[in-house]
Amino acid sequence: MPADVPAVAASPTQSRTKILDVIRASRTISRVELAQATGLTQATVSTVVRRLLVDGLVVEVGRGVSTGGKPRTLLRIEPTARYALGVQLAAEATIFVLADLGGATVSRWRRPALRDPEQAVEMIGAEVDGGIERAGVPRERVIGLGVVASGPQLAATGIALAPPAMTAWVDFPLRDRLEERAGLPVLLDNDATATAVGLYWADGVTAATTIAALFMGHGIGAGVLTGGQVYRGATNNAGEIGHVTVQLDGPPCWCGNRGCAELLGGTAATIERARQAGIDLGPADRPTLAAFGALARRALAGEPGPLAVVQHSARVVAVAAHTLVNVVDPDLLVLTGPAFAVAGPLYLPVVTEVVTGTRFARGSGPIAVRLSTHGPESAALGAAALVLQAELTPRGGDPG
Amino acid sequence: MPADVPAVAASPTQSRTKILDVIRASRTISRVELAQATGLTQATVSTVVRRLLVDGLVVEVGRGVSTGGKPRTLLRIEPTARYALGVQLAAEATIFVLADLGGATVSRWRRPALRDPEQAVEMIGAEVDGGIERAGVPRERVIGLGVVASGPQLAATGIALAPPAMTAWVDFPLRDRLEERAGLPVLLDNDATATAVGLYWADGVTAATTIAALFMGHGIGAGVLTGGQVYRGATNNAGEIGHVTVQLDGPPCWCGNRGCAELLGGTAATIERARQAGIDLGPADRPTLAAFGALARRALAGEPGPLAVVQHSARVVAVAAHTLVNVVDPDLLVLTGPAFAVAGPLYLPVVTEVVTGTRFARGSGPIAVRLSTHGPESAALGAAALVLQAELTPRGGDPG
Repeated sequence: MPADVPAVAASPTQSRTKILDVIRASRTISRVELAQATGLTQATVSTVVRRLLVDGLVVEVGRGVSTGGKPRTLLRIEPTARYALGVQLAAEATIFVLADLGGATVSRWRRPALRDPEQAVEMIGAEVDGGIERAGVPRERVIGLGVVASGPQLAATGIALAPPAMTAWVDFPLRDRLEERAGLPVLLDNDATATAVGLYWADGVTAATTIAALFMGHGIGAGVLTGGQVYRGATNNAGEIGHVTVQLDGPPCWCGNRGCAELLGGTAATIERARQAGIDLGPADRPTLAAFGALARRALAGEPGPLAVVQHSARVVAVAAHTLVNVVDPDLLVLTGPAFAVAGPLYLPVVTEVVTGTRFARGSGPIAVRLSTHGPESAALGAAALVLQAELTPRGGDPG
Repeated sequence: MPADVPAVAASPTQSRTKILDVIRASRTISRVELAQATGLTQATVSTVVRRLLVDGLVVEVGRGVSTGGKPRTLLRIEPTARYALGVQLAAEATIFVLADLGGATVSRWRRPALRDPEQAVEMIGAEVDGGIERAGVPRERVIGLGVVASGPQLAATGIALAPPAMTAWVDFPLRDRLEERAGLPVLLDNDATATAVGLYWADGVTAATTIAALFMGHGIGAGVLTGGQVYRGATNNAGEIGHVTVQLDGPPCWCGNRGCAELLGGTAATIERARQAGIDLGPADRPTLAAFGALARRALAGEPGPLAVVQHSARVVAVAAHTLVNVVDPDLLVLTGPAFAVAGPLYLPVVTEVVTGTRFARGSGPIAVRLSTHGPESAALGAAALVLQAELTPRGGDPG
C-alpha cells in the first residue's frame, strides 16, 4: 500500500491480535521488540501483555540478551492454555484435528464420510468426547469446535447452500444441534476459508501478509486472509474460484455457469478425462479422491498418459490461480487440500509459471507460491484455527 | 456475515467514519438515530459529533420530530466545509472534477489527453488554479488533489507500472512534482479503485455494503470497497479483472497471459471486431473510445451488425463480471466508466443475467447490478472522493 493511503487506526482488539500474532511468529520476544515489531507504543504493549499474562495465553520465559541496561524478559505463547477442535465434512471422509493455541496439531484422526446430518451430530459428538479424552487434554481448555465443508457456503447455523452432493444438509440446524450434543461453542465455515486461517495460525504467516489459499479436493475453492482477517464479502461467499469461467464456449456446469475451472480441471473432471483416454483407475464408483490419487501417483512416476491428463488439469488450475491472484493480489499463494497433497509437485511448477510469468510481464510485485505442508488435514486444522482466532479476537464492544 | 463470525471492534477513527457515513447517507439525522444506525453508544456518538461540529464538517439544523420529551436537533454534513479536486489521466482526455464534502460535483471540465509527464505537471497545475477560481471556492477549503489513471497501478509517488500506452510515465516522480506545482497534497491511485470510492461518496452507498465497480474505458478494471474501505491487496493491484483468462486457448495478450477478458471483449477488441465485420467506424486512427461510441450508438439504434458485435463484447464482459462477483462477493455491482456511459443499456441486461443467473442456481445471496450515473466522470469524481476519504479517515495513531 502506498504511503499516502491512510491507515485505519488499530482498535484495542486489533492491538491484542497483532501482539499475539507477533509473539506467535517470533516464538520468543521482549516487550521492547514487540513495540518495535507492531508499531504500537510501549504503554499499549505493556497493557495488552499484562492482560494476556492474566488470561494465561502468554507466559514469561527466561531473559533475552540485553543491549545495555537490565536484561529483558521474553514472552511466548502458552500453547497448552487453549485447545480447539476442527472437523472437515469431506465427501470421502470426516477429518478431525485437535490443535493447541500455538496452531500445532495435537492429534488428528479420520472417520467415514457423513451422509446424513442427524448421524453427523451423533458421530461428531462422540468423536469430540473420545478425541479429547484420548489426547489427555483438560476438557475445560477446549474452547470450541469448528466445522467446515465445501461451499458455496455454510451459513451461520447450518448448511444453507450446498453443492449437489450435500442437498440433504440444507436448512438442518447443524450448529445448534452440535452445540447441544458436544457442549461446546460451534463455528461453521467454508473449508477453503478455514484453510487460509489455518495457514495463518499453523504456518507462522503474519498479519501483514495477504494470503490466498487455493483449495482443491472434490471441488476447487479459495480462502483469502488480509491483515489477519478473513475476507468474506457481502454474503460470506467470497473466493468461489472453482466456478469462474475459463472457457467462454465451454460446457454448462451445474452451477448455471459455463466452462467453469472446476468442471474442466477439477478432480472429478480429471479422472473422467483419464478414463476417456483409456487409463484404468479401477471401478467407476471408486471415490473421486481415491481415483485421483491413483492417477496422480502414476503421473508422478512418469507414465505419459496419466501425466498428460494431470498436466491438462494443472493448466486449468493455473488459470484459476492466476484469476484469483489478479483479483485478490496476495503476496502468498498456497496450494492446499487433498488433491495437492498427492499431486502438488505436478501442479506447483505450472501454477507458479502462469502466476509469476504474467506478473513479471506486467511489472507487478513479487508473489510466493507454495504447497501447504498440511494438505490432507488443512481444512480441519483451519476449522480449529477459526475457533482460536475467534477466541483471541473477541467480539469488540464500543471503543468509545 | 453470519452471527458467529467475530466482529473486530471499531476504532475511534472507524467510529468517526461510520458516523459521517450515516449522516451523509441520511441527509439529516439526530444523535439518537445515529446511535441506533451505527450501533455505537450515545456517549461515543456525542463525543464524535462534538468533534465534527468543531471541525466544521457537520452542522446542526432545525429540529426533528420528537417521540416525546424534548425535540431532537438534527445533524447534516456541511458540504461547503471541504472540497477536493480529482483528475483522471485517460487515453483520450484529461478529466477534472471539483467535488464538495457531500460528494457532489461542483464543477467538471475536460482537457486534451496528456502524453508527457512534464506537460502533465504544468497543465494540471494551471487547471487546478483556474478551476478553483472559476468555481468561486475558497482555496483554503480545497484539501487535496487526487490523480488516477488506468492500471496496473499508480504507485505512491508516480506511475511505476503501466500498460504500453503509458510507459513514458514509468518512474516519473509525479506526486512530488504535482504537490510542488499545485501547492496541494496529492494522492495517486488506480482509476477503477477511485471509481468504487466515488460510488461510495457520491451515490449514497453505505459502509455496510461490499461494492464492486467494474470499470470499462480503454481497458477493463475493477475497484472493490468493503465496509467503506478499499480492498487493495498486497501490492495495491487488486481487481485486475481485465486480465483474467476467459478463454483457455485464446490468443496471447501483452500482459503475458492468454485469452484475457479485455483482449477479447474490451473496447479496442470490439472496434477491431466491428471493422473485421465490415462496419465502417471512420479512420483507423480514430481514438478508441470515439470509435466505440459510434459503434455503440448504431447498436443502440438496432442496426444488426453493430448490435451483434457489442453483444459479443457484453458476453465477455459478463463473464468477467461473474468472475469478479464470484471472488469478491459484493452485494452491489456497478458498471461504470466511459464505455458503459454510452453502451451501458446494451451491457446491463447481459451482465445481470449472467451474474444473477448463476447465483440463483447456486442459491447465493442477492446482488444488485446497475449502471453508474457518473459514467464519463466516475473516475475523476472518484479521485476527488479518495481525497475526501483520506481527510475524513485520518491516519490513526496508537489507540492505547
